[in-house]
Amino acid sequence: MSTLWKQQARQIFSEIAELSQDPEVGITRESYGAGENAAIAYLSQFARTNGLHVHTDRAGNVIYQRANDNGQPAIWIGSHLDSVPQGGNYDGLAGVVAGLLCLIRLDREQVQTLRPLRVLGLRGEESAWFGKSYMGSRALIGGLTGHDLALVNRFSKKTLGEAMRAVGADLEAIVSQQWLIEREQFAGYLEVHIEQAESLERMGQAIGIVPGIRGNLRHNLVRCLGEDGHSGAVSREDRHDSVFAVSELVAHIDQRWGEWLSDGKDLVVTVGTLGTNASHHAVSRIPGEVSFSLEIRSLHQPTLEAFYRLIHAEIRHIEEHRQVRFEFDERIDTQPAAMHGPWVDAFIRVTREHGWEGVLTPSGAGHDAAVFANAGIPSAMLFIRNQHGSHNPHEAMELDDFIEATEVLYHTTQELTV
Amino acid sequence: MSTLWKQQARQIFSEIAELSQDPEVGITRESYGAGENAAIAYLSQFARTNGLHVHTDRAGNVIYQRANDNGQPAIWIGSHLDSVPQGGNYDGLAGVVAGLLCLIRLDREQVQTLRPLRVLGLRGEESAWFGKSYMGSRALIGGLTGHDLALVNRFSKKTLGEAMRAVGADLEAIVSQQWLIEREQFAGYLEVHIEQAESLERMGQAIGIVPGIRGNLRHNLVRCLGEDGHSGAVSREDRHDSVFAVSELVAHIDQRWGEWLSDGKDLVVTVGTLGTNASHHAVSRIPGEVSFSLEIRSLHQPTLEAFYRLIHAEIRHIEEHRQVRFEFDERIDTQPAAMHGPWVDAFIRVTREHGWEGVLTPSGAGHDAAVFANAGIPSAMLFIRNQHGSHNPHEAMELDDFIEATEVLYHTTQELTV
Repeated sequence: MSTLWKQQARQIFSEIAELSQDPEVGITRESYGAGENAAIAYLSQFARTNGLHVHTDRAGNVIYQRANDNGQPAIWIGSHLDSVPQGGNYDGLAGVVAGLLCLIRLDREQVQTLRPLRVLGLRGEESAWFGKSYMGSRALIGGLTGHDLALVNRFSKKTLGEAMRAVGADLEAIVSQQWLIEREQFAGYLEVHIEQAESLERMGQAIGIVPGIRGNLRHNLVRCLGEDGHSGAVSREDRHDSVFAVSELVAHIDQRWGEWLSDGKDLVVTVGTLGTNASHHAVSRIPGEVSFSLEIRSLHQPTLEAFYRLIHAEIRHIEEHRQVRFEFDERIDTQPAAMHGPWVDAFIRVTREHGWEGVLTPSGAGHDAAVFANAGIPSAMLFIRNQHGSHNPHEAMELDDFIEATEVLYHTTQELTV
Repeated sequence: MSTLWKQQARQIFSEIAELSQDPEVGITRESYGAGENAAIAYLSQFARTNGLHVHTDRAGNVIYQRANDNGQPAIWIGSHLDSVPQGGNYDGLAGVVAGLLCLIRLDREQVQTLRPLRVLGLRGEESAWFGKSYMGSRALIGGLTGHDLALVNRFSKKTLGEAMRAVGADLEAIVSQQWLIEREQFAGYLEVHIEQAESLERMGQAIGIVPGIRGNLRHNLVRCLGEDGHSGAVSREDRHDSVFAVSELVAHIDQRWGEWLSDGKDLVVTVGTLGTNASHHAVSRIPGEVSFSLEIRSLHQPTLEAFYRLIHAEIRHIEEHRQVRFEFDERIDTQPAAMHGPWVDAFIRVTREHGWEGVLTPSGAGHDAAVFANAGIPSAMLFIRNQHGSHNPHEAMELDDFIEATEVLYHTTQELTV
């Protein structure tokens, strides 16, 4: 089977890459746009040629199923068919192709699974276009609003509503926020995806099992307000130096992060933007104002909350001893999504049977699987090793690794009970 | 005498304030411009009325001396007559007025000092206009170059050479870098100046004695280069996070600074500008680049050098354990200027006789006295308490404090031996 799969996969990836090549560099499959449409048309043709039925939901997502699908609640294998501008070929696409290869093989080998399997080719997962992610899966579960449909594509300037209508979506159904496929039809959701980090590459592992998708807690803008002053003319005890204050805070956060990891907690902390106020900073001026962003990620909401409290306690301490003040903008939360434990275990077991460790690889980036998991649907994910990170033209995947993951998916689907 | 001085000083300060009022707020006496000229014209008239002789050097600085000056090497009492744009009335002016009041009183009381005293009204001390400080005193000692004369006033766009010529300066003499008054004429230099900080105000002291003027060591731009990455998708051990690296460095610098002060070292450290690279930073991106400035000030060159070495040692440590790299622009040095020990002692003694502690107050900001001291001329400075910092319209000085300082100056000049 590997030989056939390898041959099919190589051809699909190379032909879809050609259809969605960016004029400058990499792959561009715009959400609800040309490249995404081309990938769907290509895969639908491939699926039909191989005996599958193809139809779409009212948000333009495409559904592949076997001719003998009995209409009972199914396990869905999905991923997305869009990409970031000038991105790579496998982010999203690999998961849909893996699902299709499995479904066609089950059909050809006339395997009867406990529940029907269906493949879901989702549109609009990338936030790069409309500033919103998981638009396809959100629409499917009734999670897209009229406000969302008014979002504007930062390149074409078309609204999301216009773009969705152009691919045949039913905007009325979407804004009524109903499930576009009955909720009961979803007995489970599985997703294969390239890892967006390089941790598998570093560990020499082809396949990672995702125990959960991290949530996050963000402030886009925190300001530390001290007092400007002549650097040579104010004594240390009279300083209210915002750079020293923020450096103390960030160094403390970094140190505590390391300690929490050693304690086995799942945690990522980032201060991605940082800066004195250019309108009144100077080499010889005590900096009275520093702005920065703060992002905490974890698989576990209590960890997010506890680390957030720790940061605030440290801030109160710094405010007191340095006589500075911190101001926070709105707190933005994205809930973590736990994967379904028994299915995570099944993925690990089957992966090990294939000679890999089945190493647990938390997902730092978000995925459609988080949308389904947070809607209460048992979900699980496999990662495929990637050599050059994601969202760039150098994103990479070995075909052998892809075949391994597809084999694991194939065998696991036949073990799942819900 | 206090009553007369107080009356004279009040009138001088208020009339010169009127002549150099900024149309919007505060006082503006442009270097080699209208407000500076007006102050010189006013003081020269006052000096002549009180029997002093007035002339200028070839850089437009004005010299006040007694009619009976015997032409022997003198002790000069000087300060500057320009201000920053929208600054205060006393920064510079107070020192020239203090000198004039002393000189007139010595003349009236027919005191014969060991050496002649002369008062020097310097032009062009503030860097706010041409980006260069101490232009008047530098020109006087042959320290201004043709390159300096080409500097452009950031408001009028006139060059320094044009501005100096307009007040009668001899540009040829200046660019030949000769002393415009013979070097041998300078037996010493004294300066009274408002404190630019508020340390005297905080200590409840009217008068500070300056043990030295801090030098500094600067880098306008240091860059820490790590590696950009997706905040959710790169593990802690794979991060090369420039914000964490710089925060660790700055927190360490701040901590060590505190320790060095406790050890009795004279030291000020400032990171006045700091920022991630706005062209590729983001809330969810590991920051791969942070730029910052670094300034170390001290009365003692060895302290500057030792702290600089300490910073570099810490940087090597951080570079190693975080796999980031620091890049430095050109190092800029300004030498510290030590005040003349016996004269510092004389100031302390006389100040104590006037009921004040004569507390040692290092000068964080630069002064013309540093130019003379670094040219090898015995120099000393007195600070007058100031309530609201310098280089702003709220700069303040109590007339009683000014009179106290002028009394100390008056009595000390009669004790000095060189």
